[in-house]
Amino acid sequence: MTSLTGNLLINGSWLASSLPHEAFTVVNPADNTQLPTEFANASPEEIDLAVSAATEAFRSYSVLPAAKRATFLEAIATAMEHASDPIVDRGILETGLPEARLRGELGRTTGQLRMFANLLKRGDWKRVVIDTADPARQPLPKPDIRLTQVPLGPVVVFAASNFPLAFSTAGGDTASALAAGCPVIVKAHSAHPGTSELVAGCILAAIRQTGVPSGTFAMLHGPGRTVGTALVRHPGIKAGGFTGSVSGGRALFDVATGRPDPIPFFGELGSTNPVFLLEEALAANGESIVQAFVGAMTLGAGQFCTNPGILVARKNVATETFIKNASELVSQQIPQTMLTSSICASFRKGNAHRESVQSVSVLSTGMDASGNDASPVLMAVSAKEYLGDPHLQEEIFGPSTLMILCDTDSEMLQVAGSFHGHLTGSIFAEESDSEMSTAIAAVMQKKVGRLIFNGYGTGVEVCAGMSHGGPYPSSTNVQSTSVGERAIDRFVRPLCYQNTPDALLPEELKNTNPLGVRRLVDGNWSSDPI
Amino acid sequence: MTSLTGNLLINGSWLASSLPHEAFTVVNPADNTQLPTEFANASPEEIDLAVSAATEAFRSYSVLPAAKRATFLEAIATAMEHASDPIVDRGILETGLPEARLRGELGRTTGQLRMFANLLKRGDWKRVVIDTADPARQPLPKPDIRLTQVPLGPVVVFAASNFPLAFSTAGGDTASALAAGCPVIVKAHSAHPGTSELVAGCILAAIRQTGVPSGTFAMLHGPGRTVGTALVRHPGIKAGGFTGSVSGGRALFDVATGRPDPIPFFGELGSTNPVFLLEEALAANGESIVQAFVGAMTLGAGQFCTNPGILVARKNVATETFIKNASELVSQQIPQTMLTSSICASFRKGNAHRESVQSVSVLSTGMDASGNDASPVLMAVSAKEYLGDPHLQEEIFGPSTLMILCDTDSEMLQVAGSFHGHLTGSIFAEESDSEMSTAIAAVMQKKVGRLIFNGYGTGVEVCAGMSHGGPYPSSTNVQSTSVGERAIDRFVRPLCYQNTPDALLPEELKNTNPLGVRRLVDGNWSSDPI
Repeated sequence: MTSLTGNLLINGSWLASSLPHEAFTVVNPADNTQLPTEFANASPEEIDLAVSAATEAFRSYSVLPAAKRATFLEAIATAMEHASDPIVDRGILETGLPEARLRGELGRTTGQLRMFANLLKRGDWKRVVIDTADPARQPLPKPDIRLTQVPLGPVVVFAASNFPLAFSTAGGDTASALAAGCPVIVKAHSAHPGTSELVAGCILAAIRQTGVPSGTFAMLHGPGRTVGTALVRHPGIKAGGFTGSVSGGRALFDVATGRPDPIPFFGELGSTNPVFLLEEALAANGESIVQAFVGAMTLGAGQFCTNPGILVARKNVATETFIKNASELVSQQIPQTMLTSSICASFRKGNAHRESVQSVSVLSTGMDASGNDASPVLMAVSAKEYLGDPHLQEEIFGPSTLMILCDTDSEMLQVAGSFHGHLTGSIFAEESDSEMSTAIAAVMQKKVGRLIFNGYGTGVEVCAGMSHGGPYPSSTNVQSTSVGERAIDRFVRPLCYQNTPDALLPEELKNTNPLGVRRLVDGNWSSDPI
Repeated sequence: MTSLTGNLLINGSWLASSLPHEAFTVVNPADNTQLPTEFANASPEEIDLAVSAATEAFRSYSVLPAAKRATFLEAIATAMEHASDPIVDRGILETGLPEARLRGELGRTTGQLRMFANLLKRGDWKRVVIDTADPARQPLPKPDIRLTQVPLGPVVVFAASNFPLAFSTAGGDTASALAAGCPVIVKAHSAHPGTSELVAGCILAAIRQTGVPSGTFAMLHGPGRTVGTALVRHPGIKAGGFTGSVSGGRALFDVATGRPDPIPFFGELGSTNPVFLLEEALAANGESIVQAFVGAMTLGAGQFCTNPGILVARKNVATETFIKNASELVSQQIPQTMLTSSICASFRKGNAHRESVQSVSVLSTGMDASGNDASPVLMAVSAKEYLGDPHLQEEIFGPSTLMILCDTDSEMLQVAGSFHGHLTGSIFAEESDSEMSTAIAAVMQKKVGRLIFNGYGTGVEVCAGMSHGGPYPSSTNVQSTSVGERAIDRFVRPLCYQNTPDALLPEELKNTNPLGVRRLVDGNWSSDPI
């Protein structure tokens, strides 16, 4: 086991906290044993130090050639691969997640870093537009106007509990912000500080190897309410990224928008990811739909933002068969360790509360769970009762799914219309279901960031076309995504140059187009020089 | 003179307000005479009616083929051209702006509408990405992922006082929202309600002519604090656009972000548009720089968001000559009528306050002003004194400019570093100034949305590459622009389709690519079918 310091990473050095009396330890959720190493919370002075270093780093990091930033991202990925054994070992201890999952998540994380490195090389994320001058235009000469994207400034990233690698220290927000040219300060998640330190060490190694400024990355420990809030409120911080609960994310969003100078805050909060099961699909592929459902429901102990928390179906024979088979499969599920004891306690409390609602019935539960283990729960409610109780739409984080049973197609559409924002919505349909699938799609398109046919939302593909976001509360910023190439948009803003000497233009705007990027020049797309 | 009703436009009909006792009239700021026609404020019920109609219209308007929305925008432009005489006549009476300016602004407004119509035909604003499936991929099949942009929903647009046409009823925000597929409810500006009614009439004519849903556009009168706030808070409203004061815009931004479900709010607020005058530029082109400065300062009685409110220069012979010549030219300026008596009162109060600051000296004022007329004022302060009094950076809306005089280059850079966000920054420089112009540009790029060389910010070019926005307080959303093609981004969000049957995909995502849009397909740009 690689030894851990419990220190804070600030401006290229591991610093012991000036608040040693606030040190905390973590427990292994699988057996509640305390893990070695004390971690110290950042003091206000240490927060200032990290932000000052990031502000200083921004001057040079923001104008580094994109290719150099690409090399830096690749170096982080390589360093994580070299350190994968200790990272995964500590990750297992801190999260209770199985090794295969963490190895897969590490691959996803390095894949994301390399995806952004490739995007930087492609260059089209700058969305370059050039409108050339026309000095002879009447009544006024037309100026030379050139548009590009520039990084916002230092960014605070809040690590997520449920993805200790892919949405944490070197996760999607960090990767996209670093790609954009923004220094990053990670507020590590208190449930996996050791994993965070190991990954931060990989980033530090990449900083040293590639020579980017030491203030480009920092990792701090501390409670969200104090350290997190202080970071979001800090005048030197220009944007925030967050994945977590509605209450925590909303509190930070309110701090970000309430600043004297409001900043963008990209929170990915709660989602129940409604799934519509249409009759012909159930009739044709009932078995595989059941198998895939229970797999998606219980994946990672149900601790996925895209976990299918709501199923909507008509009361009919096909649905009865689905319920029978799904109930049987759920009842065979072996409990899985949840990420923390408090997440497990919330899961049990949420289920107990829902079970106590008179109109809700429990269809099936998995095998008995103890400790911090979660046993999946499948419940049902009639559409009429559901429509009268909007709380039933809220997320129970973990493997808990509510089936909403409808008497009519119009009731099904009413249920669709009742939803607030979610990350994903799914429709299982055959061609013969097309009338209803069209009608449901028309409603659900306004509710989600990703609409899926014949599949569940889990297993978010990391690619150019992905969007992982959606109307509130699934995201605090409906116009952005936290996964996929487009996530780089979170951390850039447009900057327009007018009548600017070629020598002072950034590379992508120069007449010669030295980077060969695609540009909209006087209304036509071209990679040619001007 | 075309007769006015003073009514509200809701769902295709002119409705008399249910609050006739709240009717208001407007005065001609040129002579303080009362203008005919009483205008009624919208009641809460009328606000609900307008939002309900917009919500209903959104269902079909949002999925109209883009070409149909283009036809609608073009029809609005044509209707405004046909009605240009009465619009300009009433505009003169309500704003005190001269005829040539209003005719020019009408042309700019119709130009904007046609620019968005052309953008809709080009189609690349949807930013389409397609990642095709790979069922054979290990360990998991790769899904088919397709990304497009969809409209947010009904939008409230707040009309600006200083651009009664180009940033008002059928102005930039309205045009970009309608282009995006969002119904618009305009909260008309209380200073030019008659002009607003005439333009709204043109939009109504276009609605009837092109058959778009009648709820696609509404125009309401009423105070920002009541009607404006109620609109921003309304659950049916999904975004807001605003051009105006920092206090008004910030109040509405706070309402938008404080909703149970926060919505994007794009406010363009205050900007003083710092201009750096370097020595060699003044030496080489001093006379034209002075002429252009006084022209930009006094254009439209200085009531432009891009008005040059701050000049920064070294103390040297070239600057002394600039001051002498600018002072002389300012002293010859004939006063111009401001938009309203309260704007004029604020202008005088702001100047009186600044003149009372001990370190500030008045270099020159225009000819004596009376009534609601503004006479330009040029003041000066040393960089040292300025750096100790950050209030001196704030906007005085109107033709008031503060020169900041620096002893050293490093003081000049300190001044640049002290600025908060502004819409534009300008640098007047010759090649021989290149060391300082490079250094100033490096700082100012972080402060503004548009960096201009050898020109002032007034006369914002409406084109693909324009960005009109910037860090707070110049905008509440540093990532967006209110002018230029890219403004359509304000009112759309990404939507991802996964494994979706071709029949259910929007046109731009279908395999055949019937609209011929440019798409990023598996990492390559192409307009071809798949």
